[in-house]
Amino acid sequence: MIKAGIVGATGYAGTELVRLITSHPKAEVSAISSVSFEGKKISDVYPSYIYLNDMVCENVNEVVDKSDVVFAALPHGLSQELASDCKAKGVKFIDLGADFRLNSENEYSEWYGGTFIDKNLHKEAVYGLPELFRNEIKGKSIIANPGCYTTCSPLALAPAVKNGLVKLKGIICNCASGVTGAGRKPNQGNHYPELNEGFHAYKAAQHRHTPEIEQTLSKLAKEKVTVTFVPHLLPVNRGILATCYADIKEGVSFEEIRKAYEDFYKDEYFVRLLPDGMYADIHNIKYSNFCDISLHYDKRAGKLIVCSAIDNMVKGAAGQAIQNMNIIFGLDEKTGLQILPPAF
Amino acid sequence: MIKAGIVGATGYAGTELVRLITSHPKAEVSAISSVSFEGKKISDVYPSYIYLNDMVCENVNEVVDKSDVVFAALPHGLSQELASDCKAKGVKFIDLGADFRLNSENEYSEWYGGTFIDKNLHKEAVYGLPELFRNEIKGKSIIANPGCYTTCSPLALAPAVKNGLVKLKGIICNCASGVTGAGRKPNQGNHYPELNEGFHAYKAAQHRHTPEIEQTLSKLAKEKVTVTFVPHLLPVNRGILATCYADIKEGVSFEEIRKAYEDFYKDEYFVRLLPDGMYADIHNIKYSNFCDISLHYDKRAGKLIVCSAIDNMVKGAAGQAIQNMNIIFGLDEKTGLQILPPAF
Amino acid sequence: MIKAGIVGATGYAGTELVRLITSHPKAEVSAISSVSFEGKKISDVYPSYIYLNDMVCENVNEVVDKSDVVFAALPHGLSQELASDCKAKGVKFIDLGADFRLNSENEYSEWYGGTFIDKNLHKEAVYGLPELFRNEIKGKSIIANPGCYTTCSPLALAPAVKNGLVKLKGIICNCASGVTGAGRKPNQGNHYPELNEGFHAYKAAQHRHTPEIEQTLSKLAKEKVTVTFVPHLLPVNRGILATCYADIKEGVSFEEIRKAYEDFYKDEYFVRLLPDGMYADIHNIKYSNFCDISLHYDKRAGKLIVCSAIDNMVKGAAGQAIQNMNIIFGLDEKTGLQILPPAF
Amino acid sequence: MIKAGIVGATGYAGTELVRLITSHPKAEVSAISSVSFEGKKISDVYPSYIYLNDMVCENVNEVVDKSDVVFAALPHGLSQELASDCKAKGVKFIDLGADFRLNSENEYSEWYGGTFIDKNLHKEAVYGLPELFRNEIKGKSIIANPGCYTTCSPLALAPAVKNGLVKLKGIICNCASGVTGAGRKPNQGNHYPELNEGFHAYKAAQHRHTPEIEQTLSKLAKEKVTVTFVPHLLPVNRGILATCYADIKEGVSFEEIRKAYEDFYKDEYFVRLLPDGMYADIHNIKYSNFCDISLHYDKRAGKLIVCSAIDNMVKGAAGQAIQNMNIIFGLDEKTGLQILPPAF
Repeated sequence: MIKAGIVGATGYAGTELVRLITSHPKAEVSAISSVSFEGKKISDVYPSYIYLNDMVCENVNEVVDKSDVVFAALPHGLSQELASDCKAKGVKFIDLGADFRLNSENEYSEWYGGTFIDKNLHKEAVYGLPELFRNEIKGKSIIANPGCYTTCSPLALAPAVKNGLVKLKGIICNCASGVTGAGRKPNQGNHYPELNEGFHAYKAAQHRHTPEIEQTLSKLAKEKVTVTFVPHLLPVNRGILATCYADIKEGVSFEEIRKAYEDFYKDEYFVRLLPDGMYADIHNIKYSNFCDISLHYDKRAGKLIVCSAIDNMVKGAAGQAIQNMNIIFGLDEKTGLQILPPAF
Repeated sequence: MIKAGIVGATGYAGTELVRLITSHPKAEVSAISSVSFEGKKISDVYPSYIYLNDMVCENVNEVVDKSDVVFAALPHGLSQELASDCKAKGVKFIDLGADFRLNSENEYSEWYGGTFIDKNLHKEAVYGLPELFRNEIKGKSIIANPGCYTTCSPLALAPAVKNGLVKLKGIICNCASGVTGAGRKPNQGNHYPELNEGFHAYKAAQHRHTPEIEQTLSKLAKEKVTVTFVPHLLPVNRGILATCYADIKEGVSFEEIRKAYEDFYKDEYFVRLLPDGMYADIHNIKYSNFCDISLHYDKRAGKLIVCSAIDNMVKGAAGQAIQNMNIIFGLDEKTGLQILPPAF
Repeated sequence: MIKAGIVGATGYAGTELVRLITSHPKAEVSAISSVSFEGKKISDVYPSYIYLNDMVCENVNEVVDKSDVVFAALPHGLSQELASDCKAKGVKFIDLGADFRLNSENEYSEWYGGTFIDKNLHKEAVYGLPELFRNEIKGKSIIANPGCYTTCSPLALAPAVKNGLVKLKGIICNCASGVTGAGRKPNQGNHYPELNEGFHAYKAAQHRHTPEIEQTLSKLAKEKVTVTFVPHLLPVNRGILATCYADIKEGVSFEEIRKAYEDFYKDEYFVRLLPDGMYADIHNIKYSNFCDISLHYDKRAGKLIVCSAIDNMVKGAAGQAIQNMNIIFGLDEKTGLQILPPAF
Repeated sequence: MIKAGIVGATGYAGTELVRLITSHPKAEVSAISSVSFEGKKISDVYPSYIYLNDMVCENVNEVVDKSDVVFAALPHGLSQELASDCKAKGVKFIDLGADFRLNSENEYSEWYGGTFIDKNLHKEAVYGLPELFRNEIKGKSIIANPGCYTTCSPLALAPAVKNGLVKLKGIICNCASGVTGAGRKPNQGNHYPELNEGFHAYKAAQHRHTPEIEQTLSKLAKEKVTVTFVPHLLPVNRGILATCYADIKEGVSFEEIRKAYEDFYKDEYFVRLLPDGMYADIHNIKYSNFCDISLHYDKRAGKLIVCSAIDNMVKGAAGQAIQNMNIIFGLDEKTGLQILPPAF
């Protein structure tokens, strides 16, 4: 059994890791930590775990010492030091935060306000979006697990962008996320009566996931891509829907595009390219690691519209982190993640 | 008191008319009709009205005979004959359906599949979006009350389009509507367990409101505008949020755009242009006739992003119909519609 | 116009008062105060009011000075001094808090932990549940406005208890409240992802509303009544449903009970006794001052089951406070409260 | 692998069986049937299963022929014949419907309107509530799987009733169920806009689960028990909360009761007796087979209050059916059901 430690286990992404690793046949939770709840049981924080997982939150060092792999679900800025410790002790490190996601220190500074403490460490880190960069992930020890929006949007656009079927200028990612994306800490905006029966955009064209989406698409396009990214807050617990718009290049047919998507994703278990006429719906992937993608065509305006749906806590966080763990430990990528998404 | 009759009173838009006219100081519900519930009390259909409004659904003719103005909330295709009857009897006619909204019979045929029975009648009809076409509405007898998406999206874009501040090519209206927009009839898609905790697009670039949005914007632009319109279904009862994207013309600053919006809407009671930094939210306008608009700027991509929020059943249907009634009867446009939107 | 001041205007009950008084034809909001938001506009706190009510929160003294009546929506313990000030200045005082609700200082101390600062003041205060104690309210200057559960449950049971149709032992009030009942302050329990898709009891047989329910029922029964009161938290914004159980006395028929309810409530505009077969539903009274009551009969067990539904923020707080204001100012009790509850 | 066939696979309980058996390490779905969708793929009905389970609905006979055990999720009245067929072919039969739940044909006729076609068959059937009747289930071939309310309420009361700690007269089961309990077929009452933000009782003291609850409690008490059962409809997808009330016998302390519950459930994996101060919440058991129970005491009224929470589709239907399958096939009862309930 792989010994998996979780740092930041009482946040939403951390606790989802606990849930998923508990069902994993080849891994087990070796230790957990939490700054806010050190010395407390995780089931004190999440009573849904009571009697089933009553592990006590330890400190970070204990987690590292007891683990083959450490998952970190920390506020940005705190992962770099931990990655360094893990490296020194030969422990694999999978970071659910943003510290290792951007290749450019300038962009990191601009959007997050920090610096790269150890540039070599950053060079070792690889961006863990397996459907796009699987080969780079294999054998690595430091994985930057993508964010939720930054998984959903690039998967929606990758085949079109990589194959040069759409224009790279003017791409729009209009996204909507369930509330768990905002984390466990209560505030006025996600207080039940003020969020329920509401819907609004936030951080329009200012969200930190923007450079990360652009980095992924630029890498596929081999050219700098700028996207307009506008997230919205949905009154549901889980799920992200990305509705992406791109101008189809002249001479390219919608059938060609569909064919490109089929080829691109034909061996990807976790990407379900839906048949024509169906729409990706967060309802259909919740609690699972699947990404549903549907293609739509605005013939009158010459636009490709792609909808993609993921569970922000699974494929957008903990599930994908486990998928990465499976890869770097040489397991079948699907291990522990083959749940049938519930019908309701 | 204006005698207001409602045809199709047991549908959601019809019953919202009942609610709002009951609070109107200068109008009263004179009679109601319903094909499905003829002979039944409206409070049998909507128990929230019990003892307060127990009017019995009559047939259409009785409604016309008892009214100064008839509101019709009917499936498309059924309003033309009724409008003709009303005209013959000197009764004002406000149509909440689509029959009189499109000026082009070709477009009507293409998107709705019918024809213009009496072309003269269509010439008399005027499109009832007061903030944009108030002068044309005054004194008219047949009003085509706009649809929900087709109120929200054009109000979001009107100042920019009319003043030539954005490019007319490539405009995107990404919208999300509460479930009441789909009407009262239950089906699998809006069955509670299948809609709850879900979110998906539908009729992407194929929704019938597309030509109506384009007609309004084209009229303002004095040039044919094509938009990409993608609606989504939200797990809330009421509200539409339109998130609209347009490319800002070269040389135009965001400040200029904001100024244009301020000028355009400065005398419009029902449009609330929000200060910088705020976001239009359906939570803040529900149960009211207000349209909240917020402006956002993607400097990197040169795009204007406009969010506008309305209650689909009020400003998107019944409230706007009453606003139109107020105009054609020479009342203060705000009469009966000055509710403070509830804070939760 | 009655000048109505609101102390604690930025809490949920306070802001609902702002909304309802704005629509009141004979009263206007004269001034508002808030400890947390002094100097800020109420529309900064609740953007649904923007441009419609941008009043600035002042301090308590200013509110008292500018008002004919002061509504206080304060944490318990803070109203007594304010009531004293109002009395000194000849200002009517309607308290939405608990300070004046209990007649017994012992009970107040036991459940709330404080004392009666000025016993004479408490003697002047009257319990403002108009359907039960209207005559006592008329002409009074200090009104203890009942709580939400304590409006809903006694109205459900009053006719049966007053007429001696049920046993006074073993009465159960099983209630469920929407989240606004827990107030505006965010905490873990009403953080959206942890409340949504949840349902649980809380403070079973320990809630502070227990002695208040008992006081009302005891007064009607002219005998000490003890009730088992168990509240639950519902994932909705507004509404309380009380499902009350009482043993029917031997020899009493269900028809007799129904007749007693009909007689008791026949002149009560705000109580809607539903016909047999219908069930009180919070859906049907939201945003209104109505209390819907339905009667059910467990013949096999000899139990009366009564369901009653109110909007906790209206009939359970602000609406009832206005009803009390109408009474003490000699207005028609319904003034400003005759809204048709929305059908959805 | 146990070959498990599902008759009525496209209803909510049936499709939940599909989901759970897919994750079962010792069983597999051998065949499915559906009257409404014969010839169609289950993933056409539930797109969450697309590409993962695209089994085609066959007819009932094919299911029986291909299976070691048949689960039937059928409208009442249709299971008796199917049970007979299964018996003839040596196939185990687990009925999620009501046909075999009541021992008394009179009660069955009174509440369901049918008769026992083959009385011998009924004698062979055993009531499959493992925590209460495990020994009777072992080795049996026809299992009457309890309903949702009839699992939740008896588990809440069993230790108190069996040990004679509460009075058997006057017991109340006040329950609230998520919408999936009403099935897949859309109707006006569970149309999203009419259920959302609503809460109401239904079939008060008239629900068909009443005699089933009474049968179980009577069996434990060895005396006829009559309960008052009032179900409510909750605006959530999954979950039932039973809040049960019983008068504590004189001389019995609350500590004694708690001890009895601890003893009764100490070896029951699926029953989680919560520590003092915690409340059973449907939020904490959703998607799992657990039943959370919390004990509360109304000292003033001498009442025991027990809250119990289950997922109506799992422990209240499909999960418990699998638990029964595990028992009759000699597997560890927990097999395939050891999921950690998600924290949100």
